Amino acid sequence: MTTVRRDTYTPETLLSVAVRVFNERGYDGTSMEHLSKAAGISKSSIYHHVSGKEELLRRAVSRALDGLFAVLDEDPATRGRAVERVEYVTRRTVEVLVDELPYVTLLLRVRGNTRTERWALERRREFDHRIAELMKAAAAEGDLRSDVDIKIATRLLFGMVNSLVEWYRPQPGDGADGRQVAETVARLAFDGLRTTR
Amino acid sequence: MTTVRRDTYTPETLLSVAVRVFNERGYDGTSMEHLSKAAGISKSSIYHHVSGKEELLRRAVSRALDGLFAVLDEDPATRGRAVERVEYVTRRTVEVLVDELPYVTLLLRVRGNTRTERWALERRREFDHRIAELMKAAAAEGDLRSDVDIKIATRLLFGMVNSLVEWYRPQPGDGADGRQVAETVARLAFDGLRTTR
Repeated sequence: MTTVRRDTYTPETLLSVAVRVFNERGYDGTSMEHLSKAAGISKSSIYHHVSGKEELLRRAVSRALDGLFAVLDEDPATRGRAVERVEYVTRRTVEVLVDELPYVTLLLRVRGNTRTERWALERRREFDHRIAELMKAAAAEGDLRSDVDIKIATRLLFGMVNSLVEWYRPQPGDGADGRQVAETVARLAFDGLRTTR
Repeated sequence: MTTVRRDTYTPETLLSVAVRVFNERGYDGTSMEHLSKAAGISKSSIYHHVSGKEELLRRAVSRALDGLFAVLDEDPATRGRAVERVEYVTRRTVEVLVDELPYVTLLLRVRGNTRTERWALERRREFDHRIAELMKAAAAEGDLRSDVDIKIATRLLFGMVNSLVEWYRPQPGDGADGRQVAETVARLAFDGLRTTR
């Protein structure tokens, strides 16, 4: 078991404290004073690690974005029928979201008041665009039903995935949890809840 | 066509202005001053209609809650197989959400700092509980696939529906829009996106 000593703050420890405070108070509502109190270290110690709260935000949302974009480069996301690729990406996105819950929560709540926030929103749009392209390809290959609007379906699919940050709370010690949620999302979205008759 | 004259404020006009401001600034961040400016009438004129901002909040979330609960009493929601009832309720919930978008948006953002907010959260939980019961009944009748966790599926279904307040923007003049989204939600959730083979 690793013991984190208060006087040996690493950038990672500081980052996880900052993300918790950002999620609780909102990024706009968080001051360096709040971060210093929550971390139990002085402001000057924080400035030893980072240039300010915007750098902490950038590092935090980068972690979420890197996790999400990495999924798109994984082998099963890059070959085969588009419907299989988009189902794989959906499943893995849920897993990243569960694994990096506070970081993705922060990313999804970014509002666009600072340069870093606007950059994060831009990257999110890029990610959404990649998914939308995959969905269109799956429809073009005849693997998605033609009686649903693909644009609306794409929004709904990711509305469902992103809703996890609002209600999902990990159960202690249950490592398989994320995979179970991912499985449920994929089955619901691609095969439907109804018993096949 | 109805013309709304600025000097003949009705409680309904005031309510719709208040809901817009609450959604823009957050309920906590809205003062009577903000409401008075946005409505273009004096604070004392507002007090002529309501006792304060909490009464406006109560009226606004009541409108959303009344719309949602009314769905549960509609004929197709009360008879027949549970899976048909829950699909009907899902579809109608989307329609209410689209029709009452600012009111439901406000309801879904309520945080619980005041008595009215806590009452609204309690009513939302009641609604969610009614849906969860319907889903359980549908599973018990063998109409939902047994390889998904019904609790997670219920959360995901309503995560998807509620995500509408974040991304859905009505197209001017397109009255059928809400029904199309409702249809897409129902098909995606109950029958899945994949082409049946």
